[in-house]
Amino acid sequence: MEKPSIPKGTRDFGPDKMAKRNLILNQIRKTFQHYSFAQIETPTLENLSVLTGKYGTEGDQLLFKVLNSGNFSEKLTELDLLDGYKKITPKISEKGLRYDLTVPFARFVVMNRNDLTMPFKRFQIQPVWRADKPQRGRYREFYQCDADVVGTNSLLCEAEIVLMITEIFEKLQIQNFTIKINNRKILTAITEKIGATGQETTLCVAIDKLDKIGKQKVEEELIANGFTNETIVALQPIFTIDGDFGSKIKALDEWLGDLEIGKAGINELKEVFELVKLSGLENPKLELDITLARGLSYYTGAIFEVKALGVSIGSVSGGGRYDNLTGAFGMPGLSGVGISLGVDRIYDVMEELDLFPKNLVKSTEVLITNIDASAMSVAMPLVADLRKIGIASEIYPDLSKLKKQFEYANKKEVLFIIIIGQDEMTENCVTLKNMTDGSQIKLSRIELLTFLQKEFA
Amino acid sequence: MEKPSIPKGTRDFGPDKMAKRNLILNQIRKTFQHYSFAQIETPTLENLSVLTGKYGTEGDQLLFKVLNSGNFSEKLTELDLLDGYKKITPKISEKGLRYDLTVPFARFVVMNRNDLTMPFKRFQIQPVWRADKPQRGRYREFYQCDADVVGTNSLLCEAEIVLMITEIFEKLQIQNFTIKINNRKILTAITEKIGATGQETTLCVAIDKLDKIGKQKVEEELIANGFTNETIVALQPIFTIDGDFGSKIKALDEWLGDLEIGKAGINELKEVFELVKLSGLENPKLELDITLARGLSYYTGAIFEVKALGVSIGSVSGGGRYDNLTGAFGMPGLSGVGISLGVDRIYDVMEELDLFPKNLVKSTEVLITNIDASAMSVAMPLVADLRKIGIASEIYPDLSKLKKQFEYANKKEVLFIIIIGQDEMTENCVTLKNMTDGSQIKLSRIELLTFLQKEFA
Repeated sequence: MEKPSIPKGTRDFGPDKMAKRNLILNQIRKTFQHYSFAQIETPTLENLSVLTGKYGTEGDQLLFKVLNSGNFSEKLTELDLLDGYKKITPKISEKGLRYDLTVPFARFVVMNRNDLTMPFKRFQIQPVWRADKPQRGRYREFYQCDADVVGTNSLLCEAEIVLMITEIFEKLQIQNFTIKINNRKILTAITEKIGATGQETTLCVAIDKLDKIGKQKVEEELIANGFTNETIVALQPIFTIDGDFGSKIKALDEWLGDLEIGKAGINELKEVFELVKLSGLENPKLELDITLARGLSYYTGAIFEVKALGVSIGSVSGGGRYDNLTGAFGMPGLSGVGISLGVDRIYDVMEELDLFPKNLVKSTEVLITNIDASAMSVAMPLVADLRKIGIASEIYPDLSKLKKQFEYANKKEVLFIIIIGQDEMTENCVTLKNMTDGSQIKLSRIELLTFLQKEFA
Repeated sequence: MEKPSIPKGTRDFGPDKMAKRNLILNQIRKTFQHYSFAQIETPTLENLSVLTGKYGTEGDQLLFKVLNSGNFSEKLTELDLLDGYKKITPKISEKGLRYDLTVPFARFVVMNRNDLTMPFKRFQIQPVWRADKPQRGRYREFYQCDADVVGTNSLLCEAEIVLMITEIFEKLQIQNFTIKINNRKILTAITEKIGATGQETTLCVAIDKLDKIGKQKVEEELIANGFTNETIVALQPIFTIDGDFGSKIKALDEWLGDLEIGKAGINELKEVFELVKLSGLENPKLELDITLARGLSYYTGAIFEVKALGVSIGSVSGGGRYDNLTGAFGMPGLSGVGISLGVDRIYDVMEELDLFPKNLVKSTEVLITNIDASAMSVAMPLVADLRKIGIASEIYPDLSKLKKQFEYANKKEVLFIIIIGQDEMTENCVTLKNMTDGSQIKLSRIELLTFLQKEFA
């Protein structure tokens, strides 16, 4: 018999991993909720008419497509076979798996436009699927956590994104991180300033690689793509502007402040920074990075990227403002801003930094041993009482040797064991064993409940 | 432009529906955890080699299959086309969507057999997909909540299933429900007793329809399938045995107690009932129903079905004991027992009975109006304070007319509004408006926080 397996790029999450993931997801959810974002969920299956063309040619290739039910090949002809798989696909598949949370959200907004109160703040925590080549830290099925506000241009939303990310990372004990911010208008102003108007995409594609390939290679790529030596010379401030947020803003103002779009971008960046400081955040980990472009295709204002520092995994979150999220679905002009958090990345960062608490909730906190069938009349109401006060507890299901039951307790890292044998039955008490220090004590039912209630308060 | 849509049988869950669903899911999760079940998650995508053949021929047809990535049709020939879609499928698709949580769990247990502590109690809350014909209450994508124990024959597990279900329904305020229980051994004993040994499947398929088609039609079906008049006469007690749990057990004992398998089934039912009562449950809603067969194919001991009473939707949960869950994956002889709860059904029951609380958590509990740009220096630290004490709050993002901001607050059912205008700035206070009774009061920052902390405690 073939051994069962799971598709490459997918994962099972056993109890330990789930507890760690839930720690992250619960914190993200709680923060989003405190910031008045409302949760929604969209279907895993979307019509391919909704998904196709929204993620570029490469994205279309990476969509998982679902075979139509029933006799899907009925109308396929020999000629179709000759046309190749790209032409066959739409004839046998009309649904695909969610590729991100942004496009389904845009579809949701358009379909529910009459019922939504604008501005609409939504968060969404669901898996997405991409037929990418699996590699370390990249999976074919992974969770995204998105928060977006649509229906307002207010920069308060950008400031709140910075605050939310700060809160989430601090609560997760990730101390060392940076929230990079840029603004599309700065990138537009730069191309205008250096005499490369309209060549924003070329600039951004190249500059996005600065971290990886260095300044020289970026310049070479720009020249290879038609940038003149003069524009490269004029571009130099992008590499040299340095210092804290304020100094960078000042330098930017000197460089691009005479351009209308440059001034607008600078003012937006300043306002976001000031709002963040107003909220009382003492040292906002907000770093102005004018080389940050991130895909860029649909960002029109702020651009965000969050990096964990001092770890092998870098980027854990990205986002920005877009002015035309729902345009593809016939609802133009709706501005929004949002952020997407990668749970798997955050998980890996926390593992690398050893940040998961040692005392993560155990599936069994208290185990009642099963050594005497007649003790069930004590054990059954007792375990009911423990559960009522919120303690995860169980009776060992079988009348096994005590040694076996203790092994079970040890493997599951049970915190307390309750023993009810003949002695205890006679004395109308139970024995409580503390598995951490090995101490043992006899207690009445009431004493036990009082003690454990305090212990797990 | 085509209006966007979602695939039939799938649903979007907006903020209101999500809040209601989360109420149900949180209660189920909490109960499973109190009973020491550990959460796991398995991938949405499973290899078709794992799924196929596990759900019968009809089930195989209802599996959603995912098209292979890349040039899937490369090796397809004209001859394949002539062979029809059933033969083409395995050539262009090797993955499918999760159809239930049981088969993936069995695969998980087999793949992780060396790391799991047995007995292993797991719960799993994830969506599943079935290409069923959509109809009222039946969706193509829906959530299941499963709890199973594997690696023990202990009837304590059956008793705990009854207790868990009781706790979940009571906590959700669903008062009127019944937990039907039967035992496969009783069904086997009946066929033996009436002289129809080996015809268990025929009997069960027919008897399963008793509720829908009535006694006469059931008998007709049995006769049409080869049952003699004598066996039908001998079968009569199945229709007439009546009374409370104890009376039925007594009648069953008279009818089947002389058969070894009958006696075993009766004893199991008795022990489960006794364990449930021992736990202190005063009136266990446990109903012995010897006509309950439920699919039957893999149940070997207890069979469960939970019905909400007095509503149009009936069955909300089912389960039972199986002795060979993992056999199909090369790991025979592992006994387990489990239950599956249908969230969508429970949701519909609660809607029908109007059981959802009116004060379900609002996405915005406190709204700070935005009527004066300079007030941001007060509003930003204030909203940070509110969030710190766990109150979902936000500043209205735009400097709009107060009327518009109040409309927003009304639509979102905000509980309190905070107004910070010139007067409040001068007086170093804020105005708090209670949206429930319309009352308004001026408070200092400290007074406000103290008041709201009490209000939301």
